[in-house]
Amino acid sequence: MDIALLGGTGDIGEGLALRFAADTAHDVIVGSRDASKAAASATAYTETLASIGVDRTVVGMENTAAAARAEIAVLAVPPYHVGDTVESVADALDPGDIVISPATGMKRDEDGVHYHQPSAGSVTQIAAGAVPDGVPVVGAFHSLAAGRLADLDAELGIDTLVVGDDESAKRTVAELAEEIDGLRALDAGGLANATEIEGLTPLMINIASNTEGVGDLGVRFR
Amino acid sequence: MDIALLGGTGDIGEGLALRFAADTAHDVIVGSRDASKAAASATAYTETLASIGVDRTVVGMENTAAAARAEIAVLAVPPYHVGDTVESVADALDPGDIVISPATGMKRDEDGVHYHQPSAGSVTQIAAGAVPDGVPVVGAFHSLAAGRLADLDAELGIDTLVVGDDESAKRTVAELAEEIDGLRALDAGGLANATEIEGLTPLMINIASNTEGVGDLGVRFR
Repeated sequence: MDIALLGGTGDIGEGLALRFAADTAHDVIVGSRDASKAAASATAYTETLASIGVDRTVVGMENTAAAARAEIAVLAVPPYHVGDTVESVADALDPGDIVISPATGMKRDEDGVHYHQPSAGSVTQIAAGAVPDGVPVVGAFHSLAAGRLADLDAELGIDTLVVGDDESAKRTVAELAEEIDGLRALDAGGLANATEIEGLTPLMINIASNTEGVGDLGVRFR
Repeated sequence: MDIALLGGTGDIGEGLALRFAADTAHDVIVGSRDASKAAASATAYTETLASIGVDRTVVGMENTAAAARAEIAVLAVPPYHVGDTVESVADALDPGDIVISPATGMKRDEDGVHYHQPSAGSVTQIAAGAVPDGVPVVGAFHSLAAGRLADLDAELGIDTLVVGDDESAKRTVAELAEEIDGLRALDAGGLANATEIEGLTPLMINIASNTEGVGDLGVRFR
């Protein structure tokens, strides 16, 4: 499968691009609204991989072209761009393609960060409301610290939680996630359960900011 | 310190009573609205401890008497009884006593369980709104499976998340939690962050119900 990381020039896009390229055989495509930015990031990721002896080429292209080429499109964009990003690539999504939503809405105040729940229920459900018919949305990769993903020397040993209403698509994403070394996928149910998964991200940020010597936290259920 | 488990005849009360009695030197008091039910549970817990060679006596008494005797009162009651339980024992709480809120609001539908956020923001904040002046509330012990706690042969190796606005009380509760073998306490910030902690419980229930061979899940951040 070809994996497009829409908005993949950002930090979570970088982390996922490097891990997918290093640990799986799937082609990785970095998408951006700006094709030249996508190409620059793709080149940088390819060089990072080469520097640790991984001979994989990440390519970059405009989001729509990336989505057209891939069977898996990851919305590696801020939560407030999830809806418009899906709409901008909608014509490039074919029935059977899978859209993955990893974003979470957060707001910060003096107490730390809090989950900012969208009126749709979750960011994942915003994506689900924007895709064309026949394109399932799966929520996954929320609770992964981008910096840890991007550090290919860092062991993971952590979980990602997967939600979706299309069981086949959810299974495909879970299997794809588990191709990343040290990542385990756990099924947390349907799209309606995305809220609690997205709420885990601010919780982890609050723990890390209140605990000395802890950063780039992951989570393992046991 | 003496620890009162208000509503401690229920499953989370049983688990905490057994672990505190087995692993710490603190006296454990089971509270109930019904003194005879409290006494019966206390006797049963004492017998369970004796059966594995732990010579500790758990005592039982009516909630108010339990709260009067203890320095730590755990609200081991369903979320919709948190407010009235605090009010019923308010006269028995002295300044400097600490109230611990482990409950979370959930609702179930065809997709699984969901966090049911109270208008106060969280169950922990309901408790904080009901305590007398000078009695801090700390949120803790939310994400612990009662059955696993009550099985003293089960290793924990998991985390509990602690929130509170009184740093000293929060530290006391974190230290108390870590006296339980295999339990690590992580600081997730102030009371305003209780929402995300309470939301972790339905997430864990959804994971367990969607994953074969998994039950009584705990969580470890790493």
